[in-house]
Amino acid sequence: MSGKIYEKEHQIKYYECDTTQKMTISMLLNVMLHVSGEQSYLLGVGDRVLAEKGLTWIILQYEVKIERMPVFYESIKITTQATSYNKLFCYRSFKVYDTQGNLCVTVNSTFALMDVQERKMVRVPAEIVAPYETDFSKKLIRTPKPEKVNEEKKTSKDYQVRYLDIDSNRHVNNSKYIEWAMDTLDLEFLTTHEIETMTIKFEKEVHYGQLIHSEISSMKNQDEATITAHRISTEDVTNFEASIVWKATV
Amino acid sequence: MSGKIYEKEHQIKYYECDTTQKMTISMLLNVMLHVSGEQSYLLGVGDRVLAEKGLTWIILQYEVKIERMPVFYESIKITTQATSYNKLFCYRSFKVYDTQGNLCVTVNSTFALMDVQERKMVRVPAEIVAPYETDFSKKLIRTPKPEKVNEEKKTSKDYQVRYLDIDSNRHVNNSKYIEWAMDTLDLEFLTTHEIETMTIKFEKEVHYGQLIHSEISSMKNQDEATITAHRISTEDVTNFEASIVWKATV
Repeated sequence: MSGKIYEKEHQIKYYECDTTQKMTISMLLNVMLHVSGEQSYLLGVGDRVLAEKGLTWIILQYEVKIERMPVFYESIKITTQATSYNKLFCYRSFKVYDTQGNLCVTVNSTFALMDVQERKMVRVPAEIVAPYETDFSKKLIRTPKPEKVNEEKKTSKDYQVRYLDIDSNRHVNNSKYIEWAMDTLDLEFLTTHEIETMTIKFEKEVHYGQLIHSEISSMKNQDEATITAHRISTEDVTNFEASIVWKATV
Repeated sequence: MSGKIYEKEHQIKYYECDTTQKMTISMLLNVMLHVSGEQSYLLGVGDRVLAEKGLTWIILQYEVKIERMPVFYESIKITTQATSYNKLFCYRSFKVYDTQGNLCVTVNSTFALMDVQERKMVRVPAEIVAPYETDFSKKLIRTPKPEKVNEEKKTSKDYQVRYLDIDSNRHVNNSKYIEWAMDTLDLEFLTTHEIETMTIKFEKEVHYGQLIHSEISSMKNQDEATITAHRISTEDVTNFEASIVWKATV
């Protein structure tokens, strides 16, 4: 693993937490992306430099492993590192530590560059990634695939995309898919279970005004843990898939 | 005006901004409340101390005046001061400054204490407010009332309360009402207008699973500025009212 490591402290605010006072996964991913965005900015390859070239980063995949989700008012340290890249994909890891140095969360992610006008992925230019001092490797990294929704056991909810779901990339912010996926679970389940691992795949961007169809199915793995599989679609196009392994807290 | 002033720097993150790269009003109010919560914590009367007494702060009213809404990656300074209190109400002001010291936003707010079990307002105990060094004044402060929704010209949208709308007070977070109110406006209007002033009144808390009815009507004032009036209700109970004076940006 190569690549400069960047780190930042973050104090958890009440509005980043759910009713159990734990930080939400969607807010954690938002904060992490802010930290990697800051590293890019400080290395001279921030969002504005990319925008001048007509480019923006998009996220294709997250693999999340949670040892302990940090809670309200806790100070955490987030580290991030661009670990390798190839013709089309850039791999980046994030780690979250508490003040005692315990590892709380690990996230491995896959990024790509999108041409803002064409809305299409482009080859990664060497000058954009050079400042991170990350190795080029022809090898594609095999990333785990989310479990598929069981068509016979699924339930669903519909959502209309709102103005505040849209970010400066003029599409739905990544964290919103996670909110739509989580909202298919009921309050009783969400207040008595925690995420252990989560695999997320972003397939196709969603725009303002679209109608979102959020599907879920649930099963048990060999350890009797609940696994939920999620799919978000718009007019039969799959935009997002994810699966979550849960642990009971009570 | 009496009361200790507390201040804090804040750097604006991309996920606190809308598609125009300006900070959203709902996120600004979230961040402001974090700052006043931190003042309370540092003065020894934080949320946990209140919770031990079975109490929590609730917000009844906001009056917002925006000179310029800060933008992505800007550093702002937020100051807050408890300005006076009486038997039931505590008044607190917030100011937001940019790095050149220009005043960007002023917010005057009215708080009260709620008994968490009874879900009712209680008399403000002297020992809770003493650390802020704020004057007691019998006089109730007259706060402006939001414009009423015009019943003959109104339109509306419905929303289901989601798990992530609920905060650690086990009711809908204040910022969510503002999001439901704003979402009744269309993309074209929101990207060509900015909030100049906003008057917000929280009437009655909303809980998980409730169906939200968000109404809006629009009119012009004597300066030809657009004013929108908003009401949020659940089963004919009014939970929230607000009005906004807008300025065109193009």
